[in-house]
Amino acid sequence: MSELSRIGVAIDSELLARFDQHIHERGYTNRSEAFRDLIREALIEQTAAKPDSVVVGTLTLIYDHHVRQLSDRLTAMQHGHFHLVLSTLHVHLDHHNCLEVLILKGNAAAVQKMADALISTKGVMHGRLTITTPGTAL
Amino acid sequence: MSELSRIGVAIDSELLARFDQHIHERGYTNRSEAFRDLIREALIEQTAAKPDSVVVGTLTLIYDHHVRQLSDRLTAMQHGHFHLVLSTLHVHLDHHNCLEVLILKGNAAAVQKMADALISTKGVMHGRLTITTPGTAL
Amino acid sequence: MSELSRIGVAIDSELLARFDQHIHERGYTNRSEAFRDLIREALIEQTAAKPDSVVVGTLTLIYDHHVRQLSDRLTAMQHGHFHLVLSTLHVHLDHHNCLEVLILKGNAAAVQKMADALISTKGVMHGRLTITTPGTAL
Amino acid sequence: MSELSRIGVAIDSELLARFDQHIHERGYTNRSEAFRDLIREALIEQTAAKPDSVVVGTLTLIYDHHVRQLSDRLTAMQHGHFHLVLSTLHVHLDHHNCLEVLILKGNAAAVQKMADALISTKGVMHGRLTITTPGTAL
Repeated sequence: MSELSRIGVAIDSELLARFDQHIHERGYTNRSEAFRDLIREALIEQTAAKPDSVVVGTLTLIYDHHVRQLSDRLTAMQHGHFHLVLSTLHVHLDHHNCLEVLILKGNAAAVQKMADALISTKGVMHGRLTITTPGTAL
Repeated sequence: MSELSRIGVAIDSELLARFDQHIHERGYTNRSEAFRDLIREALIEQTAAKPDSVVVGTLTLIYDHHVRQLSDRLTAMQHGHFHLVLSTLHVHLDHHNCLEVLILKGNAAAVQKMADALISTKGVMHGRLTITTPGTAL
Repeated sequence: MSELSRIGVAIDSELLARFDQHIHERGYTNRSEAFRDLIREALIEQTAAKPDSVVVGTLTLIYDHHVRQLSDRLTAMQHGHFHLVLSTLHVHLDHHNCLEVLILKGNAAAVQKMADALISTKGVMHGRLTITTPGTAL
Repeated sequence: MSELSRIGVAIDSELLARFDQHIHERGYTNRSEAFRDLIREALIEQTAAKPDSVVVGTLTLIYDHHVRQLSDRLTAMQHGHFHLVLSTLHVHLDHHNCLEVLILKGNAAAVQKMADALISTKGVMHGRLTITTPGTAL
């Protein structure tokens, strides 16, 4: 992190009171921290919309491991793009259902494409991709 | 609006530089204005999640006016809940397609329910509800 | 609209039962209609992500008309891009607050840019852009 | 999974052609699979909106491990709600930045509250919660 700036923000008193209550409910003990999080959220949304920016993605998949050869197919697809996959976490939800989380890193278009390919695989019941940042720029 | 407060926010210089560039691209000429908008957006999202809070909703419907009795049915549904409908705007998109925008005001659950009923009407091809605020609290 | 196709969809009975209940709650009386709406929603999301595709956008603005020259400024900005603005609807929410809805039509990038410019105008308290389709392709 | 039903869906031919192209681009080889995924997505959104329904959440956090005692604080918070945390995955993004993914399971309100508490912790730069399903009902 670089040095800290201290800026002044003009804000309607009533709006500020409502914001303070809102961030208190969310667990913030520090107003500047809440502002910084709002800024980062806005910047990450903007970054994620550019196909060639580098992003980190968390892909959550739910699937039934009894579907024939599904685990093998998912593993093969990941190895085919191993340079995009930082790490994987597997949770046995119940007798049938698996949750698998993949941490992906690469340009936004490639991460999205790989997520699409995994989510659309037969036997994968649900999948969602969340985009965040590699952190360096925040 | 009530009186103005002026608060200090501590923020990493690099993050601030990126934020300034971001809001410049979005058209802001004033940093405080951008902060206030971020705050209002966060508060409105929170409000919209509470079924009994009063909201204003903009409902956009796309439909084909050649579908038999569709216009009549949509009008009848609106009159059945006239106290929720502030105003309506109609645009003829082309020979077939209409766009109708309804401004709804009421508690969040009732607004959502009415939007669902209109969107699910046969012949309505697409509909989206956007929630905003009656303004008084911002 | 073109002619109708009738396709078969294989679907787990339990999942189908839950879907039927879900669409019933949303107001659908016809399962095919619900399927068509899901399809259109998916297609519109894909379209909206391409900057050069033609979209219709509903922009909702909340502002305080007491802010000096704000109405004039908003009107001037709209006239500067009159080819993008199909129509406008204005609602007086209360003594202070106005709601203005603009129906925009143009390529996705231009619509987004104009929405950003209006939302970021000083005195506009909240704004949201909803993207839909000109209808021709659905 | 229960037995399979086979239902008929009436759909405009042009709309169907566009849908087929869309799902092909997303990687689907099977139209029924794409329909089932649309259904599940709709059901999960509905479930996530009910505070007392049981959900699985994937929480992604980005933080700087150099922030004093941050790792300890995050670990302590997780142990304080250990019954909500199924598993955790940690990735070292670079010299400063950590990515931590928590798999949470519990009622939607409790999962959201814990996510809020972790995201709002000082030093956590960005956090996002994705809701999915425990799988049993899909």
